[in-house]
Amino acid sequence: MKKIKIAIPATVANLVCGFDILGMALNDPYDIMELELIDEPVININHTDGYGLPEEADKNVAGVALQAFIKDYGKQVGFNVIVHKNIKPGSGLGSSAAGSAGAVVAANHLLNDHFSKEDLVRFAMNGEKLATGVKHADNVAPCIYGGITLVRSVFPLDIISLAAPDLFVTVVHPQIEVKTSDARQILRKEVQLKNAIKQWGNIAGLVAGILKNDIPLIGRSLEDVIIEPVRSILIPGFDEVKNNSKQAGALGGGISGSGPSIFMLSENETIAKQIEMVMVDIYTAIGIEYKTYVTTINSQGVKILSSE
Amino acid sequence: MKKIKIAIPATVANLVCGFDILGMALNDPYDIMELELIDEPVININHTDGYGLPEEADKNVAGVALQAFIKDYGKQVGFNVIVHKNIKPGSGLGSSAAGSAGAVVAANHLLNDHFSKEDLVRFAMNGEKLATGVKHADNVAPCIYGGITLVRSVFPLDIISLAAPDLFVTVVHPQIEVKTSDARQILRKEVQLKNAIKQWGNIAGLVAGILKNDIPLIGRSLEDVIIEPVRSILIPGFDEVKNNSKQAGALGGGISGSGPSIFMLSENETIAKQIEMVMVDIYTAIGIEYKTYVTTINSQGVKILSSE
Repeated sequence: MKKIKIAIPATVANLVCGFDILGMALNDPYDIMELELIDEPVININHTDGYGLPEEADKNVAGVALQAFIKDYGKQVGFNVIVHKNIKPGSGLGSSAAGSAGAVVAANHLLNDHFSKEDLVRFAMNGEKLATGVKHADNVAPCIYGGITLVRSVFPLDIISLAAPDLFVTVVHPQIEVKTSDARQILRKEVQLKNAIKQWGNIAGLVAGILKNDIPLIGRSLEDVIIEPVRSILIPGFDEVKNNSKQAGALGGGISGSGPSIFMLSENETIAKQIEMVMVDIYTAIGIEYKTYVTTINSQGVKILSSE
Repeated sequence: MKKIKIAIPATVANLVCGFDILGMALNDPYDIMELELIDEPVININHTDGYGLPEEADKNVAGVALQAFIKDYGKQVGFNVIVHKNIKPGSGLGSSAAGSAGAVVAANHLLNDHFSKEDLVRFAMNGEKLATGVKHADNVAPCIYGGITLVRSVFPLDIISLAAPDLFVTVVHPQIEVKTSDARQILRKEVQLKNAIKQWGNIAGLVAGILKNDIPLIGRSLEDVIIEPVRSILIPGFDEVKNNSKQAGALGGGISGSGPSIFMLSENETIAKQIEMVMVDIYTAIGIEYKTYVTTINSQGVKILSSE
């Protein structure tokens, strides 16, 4: 195998109550990436999208992830990389994670699955470090493992693959900018113990609901008393989207990653599409450009489209 | 059915990282209770143990739980109650929960399972309110449901039965007094967000480990960065018990409820008994009286011994 073409899923980090530990892969949107294995020790990156992302390897999330990969691999290899990005940078849908995770998964296939998935997460976290300043894994883990993942710990890395419930996901991306670093800075460094207890009750409930496939329990557990009350202020229309989506039948939902995208889970496609209409109505009324997706949970992570 | 005799399990609240939300039932120690259904609207309580607990219904945990039960039942009934307590009050092993939970489970059997388990938890919480000042359910829930339970929320009550992993439990009860109210007061009202994130990562890991029967994951998740560092100060020998037990092969463990009992989980009886020796050596050296138990996780909760 010398060349590979893959589809890389968007991801929803945090999953409402699971700040910094939970993440979920989506079937839509997704990036397309092509990797070619070459003998020279270079990484050439070309973007065919119009987002103007840097193409020098050490300024590009795929580039730094591949550098970490090659360093551990030990032998002299290089890659030609072509990226067709569909997950908009800054959307809160794991755009940077898709770049770094996709690159190392593709490289690993080209080198006969030399590394474990956990190793790949470790390499991909270098991309997150470049993009956000922090080596977090709550987007790259579901991108690589698929479904819903738990990052119990980053140092040492401990990833638990949970499951991919048969649920629909409606996403709206209001086209405003929320920087991950800003979204992190407005959080208080201390939280009330009673709120922390509420939060970990909900996290435990959500994990149990996912593993027992108890959909009402998933719904009851989708509550965030710590992060959402602060971060949602940065997203116009958030409360209205959440309340009206629930009235339309959503199990629950919240901010995707650090925003501005908002996601809602529901049990069937009819409800998921009604929720999309709710979102369209709200952002049309507010007068903010938006993009919506009605999709399902991606169970496999990065998908190989072709290889030769 | 007019009379019933039951065995009521001791319980371990918190399960290290799951402060206020997780609990586990044990096969040993256990209380024995006899209930007789009578027509007069009175609750007569007699203790055959020597702990000197109050026997007036409204000062006794079984009494107040039965009062709540009868109030909801609506019809005129009363009970003669005989309690043989083996779970020492103040041990941190759910002694008060056993009294209140056992009484309402027995009463419910005598009245043809009129109420759901969730209702019974609600009644039993009145006993916890009397004993500790707080309506908490992390001991009464596993006592009634068996195995390991999650109390996602108290108001409204939301109990999730997880599982009863095939593990051994070694318990030591150093005979010192730690009041639940004191153990609660020394906790800080605020916690650092980064510690809360670590804690909920561990809780999520523990719940996933229990439901996936992933024993190493259970072991890795048994870490408490918030409550234990504060409360363990009240228990002489705690750090030594924990460190030496782990060296002897324990998966992990910590304070049972608010202490002073300490529990350790392990994969087989040989290790569980070695851990018991570790505990014996430590408290013998310190010169504190102690009691130990080597037992397993109780999967069924309150058990009917006889009925007529």
